[in-house]
Amino acid sequence: MSRFNVKLIASILGLLLVISGFGMLMSLPFTLYYREDWMPITSSAAITIFTGLPLWFFLKKSAPRELKKRDGYLVVTLGWIVMSLFGTLPYLLSGSIPNFTDAFFETISGFTTTGASILNDIESLPKGILLWRSLTQWIGGMGIIVLAVAILPILGIGGMQLFVAEAPGISAEKLKPRIKDTAKRLWLIYVGLTFLETILLVLGDMSFFDAINHSLTTMATGGFSTKNNSIAFYDSAYIHYIITLFMFLAGTSFTLTYFILKRKFKKVIGNEEFVIYLVFILLATVLITGFVHSLTDFSFERNFRDTLFSVVSIITTTGYVTEDFTAWSPLITMVFFALLFIGGMAGSTAGGIKVVRHIVLFKNSFLEMKRQLHPNAIIPVRLNSRAIQGELTYHVLAFMIIYFLVFAIGSIIMAGVGLDFTTALSVVATSLGNVGPGMGNVSPVNNFSAIPDVGKWILSFLMLLGRLELFTVLILFTPFFWKRE
Amino acid sequence: MSRFNVKLIASILGLLLVISGFGMLMSLPFTLYYREDWMPITSSAAITIFTGLPLWFFLKKSAPRELKKRDGYLVVTLGWIVMSLFGTLPYLLSGSIPNFTDAFFETISGFTTTGASILNDIESLPKGILLWRSLTQWIGGMGIIVLAVAILPILGIGGMQLFVAEAPGISAEKLKPRIKDTAKRLWLIYVGLTFLETILLVLGDMSFFDAINHSLTTMATGGFSTKNNSIAFYDSAYIHYIITLFMFLAGTSFTLTYFILKRKFKKVIGNEEFVIYLVFILLATVLITGFVHSLTDFSFERNFRDTLFSVVSIITTTGYVTEDFTAWSPLITMVFFALLFIGGMAGSTAGGIKVVRHIVLFKNSFLEMKRQLHPNAIIPVRLNSRAIQGELTYHVLAFMIIYFLVFAIGSIIMAGVGLDFTTALSVVATSLGNVGPGMGNVSPVNNFSAIPDVGKWILSFLMLLGRLELFTVLILFTPFFWKRE
Repeated sequence: MSRFNVKLIASILGLLLVISGFGMLMSLPFTLYYREDWMPITSSAAITIFTGLPLWFFLKKSAPRELKKRDGYLVVTLGWIVMSLFGTLPYLLSGSIPNFTDAFFETISGFTTTGASILNDIESLPKGILLWRSLTQWIGGMGIIVLAVAILPILGIGGMQLFVAEAPGISAEKLKPRIKDTAKRLWLIYVGLTFLETILLVLGDMSFFDAINHSLTTMATGGFSTKNNSIAFYDSAYIHYIITLFMFLAGTSFTLTYFILKRKFKKVIGNEEFVIYLVFILLATVLITGFVHSLTDFSFERNFRDTLFSVVSIITTTGYVTEDFTAWSPLITMVFFALLFIGGMAGSTAGGIKVVRHIVLFKNSFLEMKRQLHPNAIIPVRLNSRAIQGELTYHVLAFMIIYFLVFAIGSIIMAGVGLDFTTALSVVATSLGNVGPGMGNVSPVNNFSAIPDVGKWILSFLMLLGRLELFTVLILFTPFFWKRE
Repeated sequence: MSRFNVKLIASILGLLLVISGFGMLMSLPFTLYYREDWMPITSSAAITIFTGLPLWFFLKKSAPRELKKRDGYLVVTLGWIVMSLFGTLPYLLSGSIPNFTDAFFETISGFTTTGASILNDIESLPKGILLWRSLTQWIGGMGIIVLAVAILPILGIGGMQLFVAEAPGISAEKLKPRIKDTAKRLWLIYVGLTFLETILLVLGDMSFFDAINHSLTTMATGGFSTKNNSIAFYDSAYIHYIITLFMFLAGTSFTLTYFILKRKFKKVIGNEEFVIYLVFILLATVLITGFVHSLTDFSFERNFRDTLFSVVSIITTTGYVTEDFTAWSPLITMVFFALLFIGGMAGSTAGGIKVVRHIVLFKNSFLEMKRQLHPNAIIPVRLNSRAIQGELTYHVLAFMIIYFLVFAIGSIIMAGVGLDFTTALSVVATSLGNVGPGMGNVSPVNNFSAIPDVGKWILSFLMLLGRLELFTVLILFTPFFWKRE
């Protein structure tokens, strides 16, 4: 193991635990306000912080400061796992989720911002625990932002170089010193939008507690709700539209939002991914609304709102629900199944494949036929009017193939666990895409509690795989990763 | 249109019609023997031949002999369509399939060697018509062999250069003069194996008529049967194993079979695709047999035989049935759904993605992680111990992406036509992969008759797309194909 920078890895994991622990403490005010038992949260926080602190504090100074690429893959994957392990403590100690498998599933579903839940009666949980549940998603979202803008480009994953080329303050020559600044700026937007949404929801007569919870999980494109019926609980067009708007923003590249705040609108309109992301949502909404309206007795506005909400919820991989979209018609169910594979914009908190990859894949497929007619011509894919390196296109293609490979193997395993055809396929698609709801027995009005334990562990792994862009995790399973150079 | 070699294209289409017409006449002996109405077959043949003959005969000499690449794409796609159009005549004129949509579906399902059928009572059809039905597949299979070894490599499709690099008599410098020889050799094997299977089936007490029909459709990996219950009609282990063997051979590269006949066994064992194809069948059979045996009361031999038969039938894209594999368990159904995406070896009559592409994709996915660790190293995929050109790997990746894109769009459309989730997905997978049976309402004990007309047309298009390796057909829908140079 000595070829890894073990001390530095341990110290980073320690830091992550300290952050987690303080996150748990953020639940305490609510626990006290609602006069709930404060022991579970406090002791969970104590255990987490006092495990993390020595690791972080003592090693911080002694370890060599350079993190190598291999260390990077390891620390990212382990980070998510370790946080998810300690994150189960509030559930276990409070008895809210007594079963460890369930608690781990719920926690990693949080930290990966998936939002799949095993809870049958969410509303029966103590408020403090519910806030922690929402916080796992919010912390996960924060992690994703720093991952997307700072860590993955260095690890060379997902062609992210491409997607963050425009990140504020990042330029190839002086990458490292400015990464901190960039992350801070984007975090500020993240925090700011969370506050803004909370205020707007409170103005719509949502209770402060629910408003803050929903804001935390909206901005993370997580989708955990404090209500059993998710957002369908609220019979308010205002609340539905506000949440739709913030889901949309959370699925938008935070770099782009930064440009909007800086009033550099040209960069926004010139961003192909954003335009397609927008067009895609509008197109799907218009088409589906038409069908839905022919099937229900609700007003046109209501159908439009439910459709827009569902489309945005699924494309951004949030997973909130106002209406069971699998109950409308087979066509609409299939469309939503396909939407599970879209994902929001790169550089947002959305999971899944991401719009920019689809653009590259689609363009490349089209151009491949041109290449066939002119085999000697070099015909690169263009994005935002610039030619993309062939290597990067190649990488996106490879990502997609692995995504489908994992999807296929996952589906077979989940069928082996006993799930029916529809449920098996959609449970894997929704976990890998970090969405939340699916079709069949995990439709928006169901949850994941009935899935056998072994299935929950596999889905937990798939959520992690999807969230960390496959490669980060899968590379740990290759022999050459562990080989001494 | 003048930029295309219209005369030469017309003359080739004419030739194909003449071949089709004489194919129809091959049914005549059976029609007469069974004392059936000989008018439908004779007049179909007459119409087809006398449409084709003038096109072929008069243009043959006058047209410039050079076929350009663009002409190639056009002639291949049009060839399959024109043959399928005229191929409906025996069904229509005999009244066996009075509806044109159904007749076209059945015919193109034949010529593409898919084997999906709209017939509810196959056994009620005149023998002559049934033989024509089987012949459409056999002729289609013949077309595929010449396509794979001679035409597609020139059109640069599917990285077929790679797969046929070992074709007997084909070398890069003198490709054209030897193509005819190669095609003839492989056809000889095709015809020879068809005869051999017929004899072996007759020895197993299958009637001569059924034996010849099943042999025609086995070698084409087509799967049309003369019995309503497909091969399940025969309660004979001998027949089941013989057909399994010939399905396996039909899914094996004919080039490889040529080497076997030449006793160059080293080339066979050294062929990675063949080894994986074999291992894949054995592995799937062993695993599934275990499950099946725990579910049924049949003998182990019976379960093994049914499983082996089903696995070979689906992997080779034949589609014969001895047992409804969707009735065993959700896991097995899902495995068979995945098998719809495998396809046999390249250079065989099997449709689908093909084993060699899966090998390239899988290896590339694995190596992609190595490339991530060593971004400056050039790490090519190796096949049969030789490095593959990066371009070719790229091409295989692009093929796969387009395959999934077509699969996704097709599934949405078929759901729009009203099919349920499972049926919609599997009907598209089985059509695009030229397999035949699927899951849900197109399970092995069902057929395609209940699918709405518009759905049948879309599936016909998908069968053609899949059979012609996507690009040949899709390129016709691009603007640059029609642009004057």
